Order: sequence, then C-alpha cells, then structure tokens
Amino acid sequence: MRLKTRFYEIEVDKPIVILNDEDAKDLGVFVSGRVKIKYNEHEITAIVDTTETLVREGEIGVLKDVHDLIKVDAGDYVEVRSASKPASVEFIKKKLDGHTLDESEIYSIIYDITNNNLSSIELSSFVTGGYINGYTIEEIVSLTTSMVKTGKQIDFGDDVVDKHCIGGVAGNRTTMIVVPIVAAAGLTIPKTSSRAITSPSGTADTMEVLSSVQFGIDEVREIVNSAGACIIWGGAVNLAPADDKIIRVEYPLSLDAEGHLLSSVMAKKMAIGSDYVLIDIPVGKGSKIATPDRARKLARNFIEIGCKLGISVECLITDGSSPIGAGIGPALEARDVLNVLNNKGPIDLMNKSLDLAGTLLELSKRVDKGKGRKMAENILSSGKALDKMKQIIELQGGDPEIKPRDIEVSDKKHVIKSKHKGKVRFIDNKCISSIARTAGAPRIKSAGIYMHVGVGDSVRLDDPLFTIYASDNNKLDDAINICEKLIPVRVGSVISDIIT
Amino acid sequence: MRLKTRFYEIEVDKPIVILNDEDAKDLGVFVSGRVKIKYNEHEITAIVDTTETLVREGEIGVLKDVHDLIKVDAGDYVEVRSASKPASVEFIKKKLDGHTLDESEIYSIIYDITNNNLSSIELSSFVTGGYINGYTIEEIVSLTTSMVKTGKQIDFGDDVVDKHCIGGVAGNRTTMIVVPIVAAAGLTIPKTSSRAITSPSGTADTMEVLSSVQFGIDEVREIVNSAGACIIWGGAVNLAPADDKIIRVEYPLSLDAEGHLLSSVMAKKMAIGSDYVLIDIPVGKGSKIATPDRARKLARNFIEIGCKLGISVECLITDGSSPIGAGIGPALEARDVLNVLNNKGPIDLMNKSLDLAGTLLELSKRVDKGKGRKMAENILSSGKALDKMKQIIELQGGDPEIKPRDIEVSDKKHVIKSKHKGKVRFIDNKCISSIARTAGAPRIKSAGIYMHVGVGDSVRLDDPLFTIYASDNNKLDDAINICEKLIPVRVGSVISDIIT
Repeated sequence: MRLKTRFYEIEVDKPIVILNDEDAKDLGVFVSGRVKIKYNEHEITAIVDTTETLVREGEIGVLKDVHDLIKVDAGDYVEVRSASKPASVEFIKKKLDGHTLDESEIYSIIYDITNNNLSSIELSSFVTGGYINGYTIEEIVSLTTSMVKTGKQIDFGDDVVDKHCIGGVAGNRTTMIVVPIVAAAGLTIPKTSSRAITSPSGTADTMEVLSSVQFGIDEVREIVNSAGACIIWGGAVNLAPADDKIIRVEYPLSLDAEGHLLSSVMAKKMAIGSDYVLIDIPVGKGSKIATPDRARKLARNFIEIGCKLGISVECLITDGSSPIGAGIGPALEARDVLNVLNNKGPIDLMNKSLDLAGTLLELSKRVDKGKGRKMAENILSSGKALDKMKQIIELQGGDPEIKPRDIEVSDKKHVIKSKHKGKVRFIDNKCISSIARTAGAPRIKSAGIYMHVGVGDSVRLDDPLFTIYASDNNKLDDAINICEKLIPVRVGSVISDIIT
Repeated sequence: MRLKTRFYEIEVDKPIVILNDEDAKDLGVFVSGRVKIKYNEHEITAIVDTTETLVREGEIGVLKDVHDLIKVDAGDYVEVRSASKPASVEFIKKKLDGHTLDESEIYSIIYDITNNNLSSIELSSFVTGGYINGYTIEEIVSLTTSMVKTGKQIDFGDDVVDKHCIGGVAGNRTTMIVVPIVAAAGLTIPKTSSRAITSPSGTADTMEVLSSVQFGIDEVREIVNSAGACIIWGGAVNLAPADDKIIRVEYPLSLDAEGHLLSSVMAKKMAIGSDYVLIDIPVGKGSKIATPDRARKLARNFIEIGCKLGISVECLITDGSSPIGAGIGPALEARDVLNVLNNKGPIDLMNKSLDLAGTLLELSKRVDKGKGRKMAENILSSGKALDKMKQIIELQGGDPEIKPRDIEVSDKKHVIKSKHKGKVRFIDNKCISSIARTAGAPRIKSAGIYMHVGVGDSVRLDDPLFTIYASDNNKLDDAINICEKLIPVRVGSVISDIIT
C-alpha cells in the first residue's frame, strides 16, 4: 500500500508509525503490530499505532525516529506492508506460559530490547512475566551474557575487582573509600556507579561534588590506566543498555524481580571484565532486603551465577537497619568521605569501608585470609588512600586539594532536637531518606541531613538529633513538617513500630 | 514549577506530557510517573514521558488529549507539580504478587482503565499478571460488574435472552438464524456481535452485507422495542468499554486469559440485562478450545459466574473440528443464512442453529424441556423466522426483500479439486480461515470460500472441494498458493497431521 507521509516531531526511541484505522484494517495489522516501510533504498520495520481521526486514510504518521531512519520528506509516498512479529515475541509468550527459556531465546529478547524492536506492551509483559514466574540460574546467566553482548565492553586485563551494594541504606557511601584503598594496593577497580532514583544520593551524585563523573569509554580507559581506578556514572558508558530499558519499565510498579537484580548487577561487572566482585547486602527494617534468610538466598545465587560466568563473587550481609555515616545527601556525604580518607570522622562509615576493602583484598588474593582488614587499615592510615583519591579526582577533572570544609552545604538549616531523655533505639532509613529528598537532595547537592546521633547513643532532652539542610525555606518547612509525622529517630521507647 | 507549553498534534487517548529530563528530575518524577497540571481553572493529572532533546528545560510538551482537556494555547505557561499514582497501581502490584483482589480494588482498576488513567506499562502489567496468576470466581464476578458499571447499560425488561459463541470455527454463522427464531417466539434478544479480528468474518461483518450494524444506544432501543431483536456491532454501543481496552493489550501477545474471556462475555450480556444466556463452546483441533475437558471446565465457570450475577447460563459443547455451513466470508455466509431461513441450504448450519434456538427456548421456559427443538423447527419451516429477519433487516436500514442470489460474490474465483479418490477425512478451520483472509475477507465482503464438501463425503479424483472467491487476481494467486502448502481438506488419508 502506498501512503503519504505526515511528519510529527516526536521522539520515542522506537520506530513507531500511525495509521488510519481503515488502512490498518486493509493491511491486516493492529495496534502494536508491525509494518515494513520502504522508501528509496531504505526499508525498516516499524510498530503500528492506529487512529480514527489524526491521520487520514491514505496517510501515514511518521515520528522523528522513523523519519531519521528512512530520511523521508513530509508529503512523500512510502510503500507499506504488514510485517511479522520478531521471534522474540513468541519467546516472551513462552515465558508468560511458565516455560524456561534457553540461551538463544533470551539473547533474542535482549537483542530486541536493546534495539528498540519491541512495543511497550511486549516489553512490559516480558518484565512482568519474569517478575511473576521468576528465572532459573541458567536463565539469569543467559540474561547476563546477553546484556553484556548487546552493549559495550572494556578489557582492563587481569586482577580487575569491583564492589556493589544492593542499597537502601541512607548515607552508605563506602565505594568512595573502598575504591582508593584497593587501588592503592595495586588492584584495578574501574567503578561505575548509579545516580539516585529514589534515594537522597547515589555514589555518582556524591562523587560529582568532587569531580566530573560523566565520561566516554575511551576517557574511562585512560583514567583507569593511569590510576588503576575510576568512580564514574555508569549511565554514560552504555554497558548493558538493555538493563536500563528494563529498569524504566520496572520502576512504575516497583517490580524488583530477583532474577533481574542478579543479571543487572552481574552484567555490568562482566562488561568491565571483573575477576573478583564483592557484594554488600544490607539487611534490616527499611532496607531493600528485609530478612537474613532472603539475603543468604540472594548471596548464594550471586555466587553461583558468578561461578558460571568465571567471576569470583563474595557477599557480605551487613546491618542495614539504620543509616551509615553522618552525612546524607551529596555534599554532606562527600564531606564524610574526605573526613574518613583523612582518618577522621564517621567511625561506622570508616569501619564498614575497611571491612569491605579488606575482604576485597583477600578475595583477589592480594593478601592472605584474615589479613585484609589490617592491610586496608594501613593503607588508609598511611594516607595512601587519600593520595589515590586525589589522583582519581584530578584525572576526573576535579580539584585534588579540596578539603571537607570547602564543600558547601546549604545555610537554610534546622536542628531537630530530642523530645525525650534516653537511648536512641531506632533510626529509620526510609524516613531519613524521605526527609533528605524533601529538603532538596540529590538534585540540590548542598541539601540533605547531618546525623548527630547513632543507634545506642544516650541523649538528653533537647539534645540535637540531626540537622536538616534544605535548598530553600519552603523545602525546609516541608522537611520539618515531615519530621513531625514520621518520627525518624526514636529515643527511649522500645517501640520500633506502631501498627494501626 | 512553571513550564511553557509546546504543542504536538498527536492523539493517544491518554493525557500524556513530555518533560525535559532535567525538569523531570527537579520535579522528582520518572517515565510513566504523573504530574498535576494547572492552567486557569483547569487542573488535570497527566502521565509523564521524558526527553533529553525534544523539549527543552523550562518547556512542557503537550499532546492533543491534554490540550483538549485544559484548553491551553501553545506558548502559554502552566503550573506543574508531581502527583501520586492512582491507588489502582498498588492493586495491580498486589495482583502481580499473587494476592486476590476484592471487589473495590478491581473496580478501582477497571475504573482507571476505562478513564485512561493508567500508563501502557501499568495496563500491560495488569493484563499479563491476570494471565499468569489467573482469577478466582469472585474476582471474575468483580471484573464483570466493574466493567458493566463503568460502561453504558440498557434495560429491555424481562425475558431477555442472548447467545454467545467462543469462536474459532469457520462459517459458524448461527446467530443470524437463532436470533430471528427466538424473537419470532416472543423472546427479547438484543444481540451485539463483534467484527472479525483474526477470522474471515464476524457476525457483525456478515450482517453488514444485509443492513447497517452500527447504531447508537437510542436507536438500538427503538429497533429492539419494535422487533424484539437486533443484530448489531457491539463496538459502537460502548458496553463495557474497559473490555475493549484490555483486548487491545491482549492481542499482540495472544493473552487469552480465561478469567478475562469469562468477564468479557458476561459483562456484555449483563449490560443489556440478559436473563438467560446460551454459550456455544466449539471443541476440536483448530478451534479455540482444544479439549472437551477444558470446555467442560470453562462451561462450569460460565454457569457459576452467571449464577452469582443472577443470569441463567447454559453451555453447549459443540463439534468445532471443521467448518459449519458452506460459505466462509461475509457475502457467502450471508447467502447461507438467507438460504437456511428459506428452508434451503447448508443442513449442518440449519441443524446447529435449530439446536441452539431450541435450547434457548427451553432455557427461558418458553417451552417445556425436550420440546424446544421442535418449536424452533416449526418457527423456521413456517417462515416466521424469515419474516422476523426481514423486519430486523428493514429496521436496521437494509432491503428486507433481498434474495440469496442478490448478494454479490466476486467473479475472481478458482475451484480447488481433489487430487485423490476417497472420503473427506478432515477440514482444517485455521487453514480455511487463512485462505479466506488471504483472498480478501472480511475487508472485501464478496471474497471468501465456498465449501463443496463436508467431512465424511465421498469424492472422486478432480471433484471440486471448495471455490475461492478473491478480491483481485493477485489475492487469488496468493490464496491458491497457500492451498498447495496447507492442504486444508484431506481426502482419503487417515493422517490428520504430520509432525516434522
């Protein structure tokens, strides 16, 4: 069928065309079906949307993506015929029907996700099906290798190590301390991190206070070749791009499928050629993993998948029941990190970082079992970790001589004080994160929360519990109001939750 | 946040706005999240899409649907803030997690589907979740009543009867014979039918050969008040609109969830106030229900749901292993129907229609058990059914005096002949449908297939098996080619399928 193009300047990251209902019927295609479009030497397959009124019979609505692919001018005629679905759609159906997919079937799905060949209905169904029916270990391995194959990869040679945290703990910024310690010990650690989605800061947001974090793949190679390490935002490097597209679909319904979590983490480690990977799994009320049982099961799966991929994985199950460190929000966390590297400040953040770094040193066989923590301590106390961090900051375009006090925090602040005398019984990660976000983090780097107390501390009436730093006075008021409702820090009472 | 509108003339049946990535971050919303948009006295909630380039920071892309709702002019400023998800999204998640939903939760989802409040990701997840996890009888009842409440309803008083066929059998056009018979017996049967989606003709397509089928709700009321019956296309009457939106999502992946099939059928029956409903469940290779076991289970569910909705349901499990009647395709089927009403023509179509009509007469207590078939025969042979059909055709704007031979069929035709001598062992519904569609049906009403033989008939070498009527010579060639490959009619051989 020959149809006259009508151009719409809309970009949807997918080749979509709009047909009049009548023409769609003539072609025998339906919404989310596919047509082949031919124009001069160009031929592409596009996904169909239909309309009664917007596009007339004899016309075809062409969005920007299709326009760019076939270079058709508005008003020109294109040849349109119905096209069959990609084979991956059959494999998605197979997954929905409870069957197990083999490697080539999963590759076919991941390939079509990467290349935007699936309609949003098909992609959503795939993600939902995986969430409900789950994946076998073999399927997760296939998901991982397929995600790696369909994205960029970097080879940094031998002894490449990495760490990953499952997340959910406010202020838990160990990466920026672990990376310089293990790099100072001679290991290669090309760390790609995420930005915050629902938290007050991701490692990439915090690192951005000190340097740039957005680099192309060649720049990353240069930085890591010089320093043995980097701390960058993973989003710019295009490792495992299918993963990012899947996450966009998971987000609206919070579909945190375990099979996908596993493949998402492992694909990014595999793409940078990791040999040894340490996974931090915080457990506790308010963190992502609620029970030690679930954490142990997740850990066993990580290790088994690592084994099948040729990566040595070790998992640490950590206490995720309350925030780590004092600062929450990019600037305040960056201050904490520099303080720890200067052998000051937050002792819990320092301790956790040393445990992680020590474990990584042992895992990579840089040091004998049982001696990693001591080695990490020595590297930190000697100032070698700080020197390494300065090198990384400089290579990433920041000021290596920056001091904690140079980092600006907002002057719109308010101290929340204790209304009781007693011990701090409980600090709620989710509430603290929510208050810090309300105050403006991570968008406004100088906003966030500074904790004056930790669990177990004794406080008197009116002792400061934490300070809120907000981006403006309205946000400060909002954040203070939330504190009244949520009671993020419980003093004295042994009640940790009230069921109503 | 105040943003300058940029207008895109695209209609998507959903309030969607496009934000620049940076503004979206500032607002704390993600793809498929929601914002409230205020302009003068108008305030609406819209679903967010994001872009890096298409819309600049400080701008908001407004599609036609939003434009129509808030009447904003391009370039004007609107006030935008993040909005929470509708509660129904939580209930969808609950379903994905394997829980059972209560009536109010299901109503909330169906309400939001009807009113386009869900993003396509959310709607796809709901449909996929229902497909995988299934529904309890109570949930299906809630789906049904919710679909009815969110659509139009018509009350035709007492003794309203209806019939429905699960489909999948070529040529099975009993509705147009059953309706005039039972209406002639004094029952009210306001029949809404579908158009073909994947078959060579739906009842609405075939009826359209004889009269119009597209009427508003007031016109339907008038027709049924005069004739006690109608045979119209259901799509125009807006009964259970959520159902149509769900079907659009089911189609690309062929997600024929039983729970949804049940609620889809029953909602449409309930919306026209049916008291007695007969369901025809054809079983056999190539029809939608493959085994008698599955058919019996489906039947029991239909009856149980009917019981809970106050509708008397009876199900007939019928032989769906080969086509019914001789004609396949709108015009050829319409000829069959008129022939049967004139007491001629396809004996199998007549017999099946009399069985169905007889059962409906008994179900509605118009006649004693065991006497329905005789009553239906009398009505048909007396010409009362034909008179009733003429009345319906006239009320629906057609020519009541139309004769079978007045119905035009294409002159581009070809006779497929037997290559063997023997008995007809098997006629494949799916192959026959596929050939008829290739020939141009249902889009071209005069295209289709005429069967010269039925299962069990003895044929000699070169005896005609069926004639293909195509819309043009190219389609005729295509259809003939398919016959060579598919072998839709098997003669002599007892092999009914070859596994390769």
